[in-house]
Amino acid sequence: MKEQSPTAILLMHCPDQPGLITQMTDFIHVNGGNIIYLDQHVDRVHHVFFMRVEWELQHFVIPADKIEEYFHTLYAVKYQIYFRLYLNDYKPKMAIFVSKMSHCIYDLLARYTAGEWNVEIPLIISNHPDLEEIGTRFGIPYHVFPVTKENKAEQEAAELALLKEKQVDFIILARYMQVITEHMINRFPNRIINIHHSFLSAFVGAKPYHAAFERGVKLIGATSHYVTSDLDAGPIIEQDIARISHKDTVETLVHKGQDLEKIVLSRAVEKHIQRKVLTYKNKTVVFS
Amino acid sequence: MKEQSPTAILLMHCPDQPGLITQMTDFIHVNGGNIIYLDQHVDRVHHVFFMRVEWELQHFVIPADKIEEYFHTLYAVKYQIYFRLYLNDYKPKMAIFVSKMSHCIYDLLARYTAGEWNVEIPLIISNHPDLEEIGTRFGIPYHVFPVTKENKAEQEAAELALLKEKQVDFIILARYMQVITEHMINRFPNRIINIHHSFLSAFVGAKPYHAAFERGVKLIGATSHYVTSDLDAGPIIEQDIARISHKDTVETLVHKGQDLEKIVLSRAVEKHIQRKVLTYKNKTVVFS
Amino acid sequence: MKEQSPTAILLMHCPDQPGLITQMTDFIHVNGGNIIYLDQHVDRVHHVFFMRVEWELQHFVIPADKIEEYFHTLYAVKYQIYFRLYLNDYKPKMAIFVSKMSHCIYDLLARYTAGEWNVEIPLIISNHPDLEEIGTRFGIPYHVFPVTKENKAEQEAAELALLKEKQVDFIILARYMQVITEHMINRFPNRIINIHHSFLSAFVGAKPYHAAFERGVKLIGATSHYVTSDLDAGPIIEQDIARISHKDTVETLVHKGQDLEKIVLSRAVEKHIQRKVLTYKNKTVVFS
Amino acid sequence: MKEQSPTAILLMHCPDQPGLITQMTDFIHVNGGNIIYLDQHVDRVHHVFFMRVEWELQHFVIPADKIEEYFHTLYAVKYQIYFRLYLNDYKPKMAIFVSKMSHCIYDLLARYTAGEWNVEIPLIISNHPDLEEIGTRFGIPYHVFPVTKENKAEQEAAELALLKEKQVDFIILARYMQVITEHMINRFPNRIINIHHSFLSAFVGAKPYHAAFERGVKLIGATSHYVTSDLDAGPIIEQDIARISHKDTVETLVHKGQDLEKIVLSRAVEKHIQRKVLTYKNKTVVFS
Repeated sequence: MKEQSPTAILLMHCPDQPGLITQMTDFIHVNGGNIIYLDQHVDRVHHVFFMRVEWELQHFVIPADKIEEYFHTLYAVKYQIYFRLYLNDYKPKMAIFVSKMSHCIYDLLARYTAGEWNVEIPLIISNHPDLEEIGTRFGIPYHVFPVTKENKAEQEAAELALLKEKQVDFIILARYMQVITEHMINRFPNRIINIHHSFLSAFVGAKPYHAAFERGVKLIGATSHYVTSDLDAGPIIEQDIARISHKDTVETLVHKGQDLEKIVLSRAVEKHIQRKVLTYKNKTVVFS
Repeated sequence: MKEQSPTAILLMHCPDQPGLITQMTDFIHVNGGNIIYLDQHVDRVHHVFFMRVEWELQHFVIPADKIEEYFHTLYAVKYQIYFRLYLNDYKPKMAIFVSKMSHCIYDLLARYTAGEWNVEIPLIISNHPDLEEIGTRFGIPYHVFPVTKENKAEQEAAELALLKEKQVDFIILARYMQVITEHMINRFPNRIINIHHSFLSAFVGAKPYHAAFERGVKLIGATSHYVTSDLDAGPIIEQDIARISHKDTVETLVHKGQDLEKIVLSRAVEKHIQRKVLTYKNKTVVFS
Repeated sequence: MKEQSPTAILLMHCPDQPGLITQMTDFIHVNGGNIIYLDQHVDRVHHVFFMRVEWELQHFVIPADKIEEYFHTLYAVKYQIYFRLYLNDYKPKMAIFVSKMSHCIYDLLARYTAGEWNVEIPLIISNHPDLEEIGTRFGIPYHVFPVTKENKAEQEAAELALLKEKQVDFIILARYMQVITEHMINRFPNRIINIHHSFLSAFVGAKPYHAAFERGVKLIGATSHYVTSDLDAGPIIEQDIARISHKDTVETLVHKGQDLEKIVLSRAVEKHIQRKVLTYKNKTVVFS
Repeated sequence: MKEQSPTAILLMHCPDQPGLITQMTDFIHVNGGNIIYLDQHVDRVHHVFFMRVEWELQHFVIPADKIEEYFHTLYAVKYQIYFRLYLNDYKPKMAIFVSKMSHCIYDLLARYTAGEWNVEIPLIISNHPDLEEIGTRFGIPYHVFPVTKENKAEQEAAELALLKEKQVDFIILARYMQVITEHMINRFPNRIINIHHSFLSAFVGAKPYHAAFERGVKLIGATSHYVTSDLDAGPIIEQDIARISHKDTVETLVHKGQDLEKIVLSRAVEKHIQRKVLTYKNKTVVFS
């Protein structure tokens, strides 16, 4: 990635009302910011206004660390705006959770190593030691927390402590085969991304490729979504499908599905890293 | 379509056993037939052998109207073969059932009129008079059978009589919004093709686009399948999807969905007309 | 299509400069308009700002027939804006040109008849009488202008006179197999849409499916573009592909290609009718 | 990959003639082989018959190392068959050539490490040291052969010696930015697979993404093909596309293109490893 000048990204939503874009762009324009990205969306069913705007800070008169405060004081209260502000010179910290399958984590780490993403990966967490070698290969600490019914709460507490220590911002479940507890979800709201190996909501559950084979479908799917306490029902970020036929066995379905999973997960992770995903009422707005 | 020399098409399945292809091709080869298409599939889970073979009859020593009998006597009994034989000089008769939406029937009739398919359409049946003008435009008799709870059995009997009179071979439900009774299904086993406006089995039911909108999916689908007594659960012939986004409303989903429906239905109908679909255990083998 | 309240659509581009969105939305907001669509794009290579904005006119203080003049006076001169203004209560008039192949025109007319598009089709023009029956079926005057080397200029003059008489706004070449002269193109700049049966710029020329077959490609494409004097090189509006294999013959390629052509053309026509296409430097901005 | 019983794979083509399938399957059947895969194709333009057949060797009476000789003697001469025989208990050796870009090689090595493919990778060859660390990470010797105009012949000779020493069967050019000489191509006929970052034959040449951007296309493509002496014109194995828009810059096109390249290359490599690709007259037959 080439060197970029410092920018701020504002992701926001609020009740729709006339003149919002004018107000928002005015805030940036009047104070010396140069807008390099603006996309907005209006949900005309629920009357909600969504916007993502990014501007260069070089000549912006409000200091970077004061923008949040000023925006809150001047606009957020008045217009009931829910917003997040991101500065592109901060590299967010992303943890990867894995179990025994390597296809997704390899794709994530290959992109990371090639510098495709503005992100740092300080650690990998797993409930199995199987993929430890991947950590070694990429020079990323790999922490094993074997989970049993008895020690689940305890192990999660240890994981949370580690995530806190490493200042992790968000988590990718790269085929992590353990249910995340509500406690952890609440600590990372809309900041845990999962890949479900199915076209939700077609084949919810543990063995979607077997179900797809039994049903004789002609397409299989994969879905990446934020994790909420309602299993597999969180806001969908990205989905895709692959064409299959009567020639496919459960084994080849799994193989084709894995190719799909890694692509769909990586696309969702990229959108999240680029701060292009807004969640609202269990759905996402994904800006292009 | 250009003039073709007379051919026979054999669609068959039987318990898998060594030497089947040899036996089948031998039957054609030894008797002077020239194979112009052969595709086969083995289901290794249930040990079933499927084959579609087409050969030119010009020098075939068995008369066309005797092939079925000979094949039955010589092979079908011995190998427990379930088969169907089709002669390409017979133009099958296809009925179209519609209600009020025109996108699917227009696509079918445009292809029919352009001579894309080796088929005859002797009639259109509807429970509403709304699309009568389409029948007039394309010169195809349009029969209206308004259905109420009270007269359903009676009307279906009249429809069946008409289908029999017109010697209809198979039926296309081009967004026909009436449940087909088991009685009619049994008269046309695996010969009624429906288009379901959803990615089965994701959003079964009457309002899949509303459900898709509510769930916030990023893809919508359409599914064409043979009608069985288990609603929306018959053997799937063809499926496809369209990409959607947060910008879509229920209205635009319906619009995109209709484009998908007509394409998916026409593809399924074409495969059926070409005798390339075999059904087995509620799944299909669709030869290419 | 459901009844819509009166709206105005502004399509514009101008040299990029800070504060443009603010200025543009301000013009609408201050004068009582309610924005229901806004999308913008900045070409950061050529520093050009593009915008499509649509607003309700119900409480807009500038009369509909004066908006163009006011916008020109107040903004266009100052910011060097190139713009077009459309009122949604005007139904544009679209002419279809065809030759002998019916797949594209059927798809256009089916959508037209079903009321999918806010457009009027006052006439069909052809260089062959072959598809005259389609005009009869849909109740649209079908004018035949047989073209030879000798009478080409003359016939085109007659066509132009007819198009003028019918107040035609734009033209769809639905597989019209005649080169359009520069004279006609200049009368309809960026208002003639063609479908090219190839993935431009892969197989330019008259027989792309033969070329694709010879090359052994695994995908075929279709491209819809505005017609410019540089044959097949005009701004591309929409493209798509279909997967093919070694099993395909030139004949099946043509068949698959036709399915693609009609879909790609209809998508391009829809975008054009919705006033979502802006052209600039031989490329298009297609708003979603 | 689960343990498989020993099988033989026969890939063949010959002039088409009646009874070929019977003869071929007879050879296997009569000698005690159990066919587990059979797919065939007839090119009706050039009258060529293609077949891929795989059978279990457990009860096959001809010893594995004699099959080639027997088939040659009994059939190949008589029917002018060009064939190759592969035994699945042999793990072919594959070399990877890279330059400076890592996206393709990472995908290949991730699949290799996960055991997706029945292949061995004894070495990586590069003209640059940049990706040496990848070799270290995956424990695969990484050989650097810097190439200049002056030393090209010499370096290639050294590469060929190394490939011979390591008994390499085929070569993958994973974005290797050096023209392969005819000398090397002749040593590996239809056994060097390249990924071209374009939809051949749309944007041949070195900077296809720049060309695509300039032309304003709505799709970009990638093509994997066997390398022949005619640059970028070898038999195509696999192609795919990604949808782009006016929002894309050359930079984002390159990024989207890289995702495409790695997927398309990996699919082609997989087909080659599975012995499912036959070449004929500069085209491929790719069995499913």
